[in-house]
Amino acid sequence: MTTKIEPKLLKGFRDYLPADLIVRQEMMDKVRKVFESFGFLPLETPSLEYRETLTGKYGEETDKQLYLFKDQGDRDIGLIFDLTVPLARVVAMYPELPKPFKRYQIQRVWRAEKPQAGRYREFYQCDVDIVGSSDMLADTEIILIAIETLQALGVKDFTVKINNRKILNEYLTGLKIKENNFSNILRVIDKRDKIGEPEMREQLNLDKNLTDEIIEFINIKGGNEKILAQVKKIIGETNGVKELNEVINNLQAGGVEERYFRIDLSITRGLDYYTATVFETTLNQLPDFGSVMSGGRYDKLISMFLGKEIPAVGISLGIDRLLAGLEKLNLVATKKSVSEVLVTVFDQKYIKEYLQIASELRKAGLKVELYSQADNLKKQIKYADKQNIPLVIIAGEDELKQNKVAVKDLRSGRQTEVKKGEMVKKIKELLKK
Amino acid sequence: MTTKIEPKLLKGFRDYLPADLIVRQEMMDKVRKVFESFGFLPLETPSLEYRETLTGKYGEETDKQLYLFKDQGDRDIGLIFDLTVPLARVVAMYPELPKPFKRYQIQRVWRAEKPQAGRYREFYQCDVDIVGSSDMLADTEIILIAIETLQALGVKDFTVKINNRKILNEYLTGLKIKENNFSNILRVIDKRDKIGEPEMREQLNLDKNLTDEIIEFINIKGGNEKILAQVKKIIGETNGVKELNEVINNLQAGGVEERYFRIDLSITRGLDYYTATVFETTLNQLPDFGSVMSGGRYDKLISMFLGKEIPAVGISLGIDRLLAGLEKLNLVATKKSVSEVLVTVFDQKYIKEYLQIASELRKAGLKVELYSQADNLKKQIKYADKQNIPLVIIAGEDELKQNKVAVKDLRSGRQTEVKKGEMVKKIKELLKK
Repeated sequence: MTTKIEPKLLKGFRDYLPADLIVRQEMMDKVRKVFESFGFLPLETPSLEYRETLTGKYGEETDKQLYLFKDQGDRDIGLIFDLTVPLARVVAMYPELPKPFKRYQIQRVWRAEKPQAGRYREFYQCDVDIVGSSDMLADTEIILIAIETLQALGVKDFTVKINNRKILNEYLTGLKIKENNFSNILRVIDKRDKIGEPEMREQLNLDKNLTDEIIEFINIKGGNEKILAQVKKIIGETNGVKELNEVINNLQAGGVEERYFRIDLSITRGLDYYTATVFETTLNQLPDFGSVMSGGRYDKLISMFLGKEIPAVGISLGIDRLLAGLEKLNLVATKKSVSEVLVTVFDQKYIKEYLQIASELRKAGLKVELYSQADNLKKQIKYADKQNIPLVIIAGEDELKQNKVAVKDLRSGRQTEVKKGEMVKKIKELLKK
Repeated sequence: MTTKIEPKLLKGFRDYLPADLIVRQEMMDKVRKVFESFGFLPLETPSLEYRETLTGKYGEETDKQLYLFKDQGDRDIGLIFDLTVPLARVVAMYPELPKPFKRYQIQRVWRAEKPQAGRYREFYQCDVDIVGSSDMLADTEIILIAIETLQALGVKDFTVKINNRKILNEYLTGLKIKENNFSNILRVIDKRDKIGEPEMREQLNLDKNLTDEIIEFINIKGGNEKILAQVKKIIGETNGVKELNEVINNLQAGGVEERYFRIDLSITRGLDYYTATVFETTLNQLPDFGSVMSGGRYDKLISMFLGKEIPAVGISLGIDRLLAGLEKLNLVATKKSVSEVLVTVFDQKYIKEYLQIASELRKAGLKVELYSQADNLKKQIKYADKQNIPLVIIAGEDELKQNKVAVKDLRSGRQTEVKKGEMVKKIKELLKK
């Protein structure tokens, strides 16, 4: 145990230090509260799964981002890539789960992507899904949750962009494009914002006329009704059109302000498993930032594990991306401490009293830090100041002999002596300021 | 996407289904609240670290339980085994962190142990540590937190068993045993409860007299004062004795009831990095169940990353083990749902009204589930019943035309019609029962 090891992080990984994590946890608590207000139940699943559970669900390109390896027992295993595939496995394994099964799941996932600003190889996903309903009411509710979640987090200016993959598939069928090309075409469309239109045209790998037509179609603009009317004119009143129409009607009926959602025919989502409704959410003030909450309907995924189809729809909140976005917009502050009071320790003889003072304050519901060693008072006050702890208790021999303590308010610099019996009251008063 | 994949879990891994997880999350919230009431700050670190960060800290046997592999970039990496080593890396990497640094960390860790009842290869640890204080006040506070945490979780009958490795080292030095044997001897003593005394004697690999003496020493019984007095008689007033004495005095001074802590000279903890105070916590009614909260002081670990020593002490709550223990003692119930009300949907025509009713109830702070599709009423009520949702809203054409809804209390079977304007009030009344 003598050679020094360089302390370093893996590329694409990060430490959440307290100043960021305190705020992040407050956000997570709010998110959980919204999910539970909709009656969704928590679920957690292992971080490691059999390789065959993970591969073949997302698409070829995405499979390359899986962390796959062998364990001590020579089993082929991997770290989970999302929370949707584990949910599908769970639903297939436990037939006793209620249907509709409404669950939320907040866990880390891993993707060996090229690290870039705001993109990490390990991050949290917060997913909400409804399993066992093919009614567009379920899709509606998932979008409602997305909207409520963002509002609960103080985000005011965002748009949920909604589409239905069936519409694109129906349109491509009309163009006589072969069905085994659809998946690639949708994936290329999904990448437009990242790669730009010229590169998208290239990757579509179709003749110019078809390419022009497709791009014109996904670019149809206007209000929700207008887009729906135009699509209907082009492909007729197909299943996809009916479903999308129903979701839009439900959202309007549910009293959601129209500015929060919009049909966007260029939304496809990159993963193979989506079958119908798909959605993304963008922060209007950061149009190039990408989606912070996306998802859709995946009616065939569970059948890969179960042999029979169970419909499902869900959404995933990228809490880290959202937080990065809110930081850009100056909508989050960092917080250095959770403590309201620091009890200083400057006389080893009175440890007993300091322990008792801290304990009394905690019993009154306060967040109280006891300094961890007898030390000079200046240093302890400097520590409280650096940590933004507003109040400091000082109790030396003189004060304690009179059964008093001094309360120093670091915000005003003012110091007051109070009888021990009035300490809690005084502190609560000062904290209200 | 056609061959069916068998949905299965890896050996030693588990799904947390809602009925267990709801209770578990309530416990975690309480634990966090206790940690924060002591002013501890949250920290999270990556699940993956460089191999060299992880190996060589725990001891040879334990290193074998690490999940080590190569990533796509051919880097040697591994899943974290505990939260103490990542903390040491963090402290070495960020000199700007305050000292004393009081942090808590709740994360999954991985150990490729032989799976057995209540032991998993992936589980959560909840750690609290104080970095930067060598004062026994820090050790005291860590033990205080352990006691407060268990009390907050409703555990009434437990014992924190406290020891100091220095005492054992000082004692072994007195027996003229070579220092490079200490680590092995301590590890074997740690395993006594698992392997039994005959096997412990074998593994100690010393002559019979020495073995007898050591066993007699670690078996010294009595109240805290009595044990301290006896140890003092055998090895003198050494550093270890002074430190242990101070922790005991502080705990008494802090007003902790004596039945919650006890010196136990056979406590050593298995990991190499502990240097002084060590502790374990057992549930008195489950003496063979093992420790649910353990830790100690590790003054040299951080120096492995930093080159200079920074003292530290901490404790880890095994939330899964504790929960398993509480289940054995019938101290936890499972909960099937978080919802207070189910809004039924049995007429597609009135989707708008159902969405509005659900939204109104949620705005009043209630946890409200909207059934996810129009379906027969009986089935929806059966669902609510199975999920233990107490109240159900029924609104058919008749009720809605009169601007009314029916509220059915599934606990009593009673159904009442109320005006929509009085719905929230009625539901809150019923929930109070």
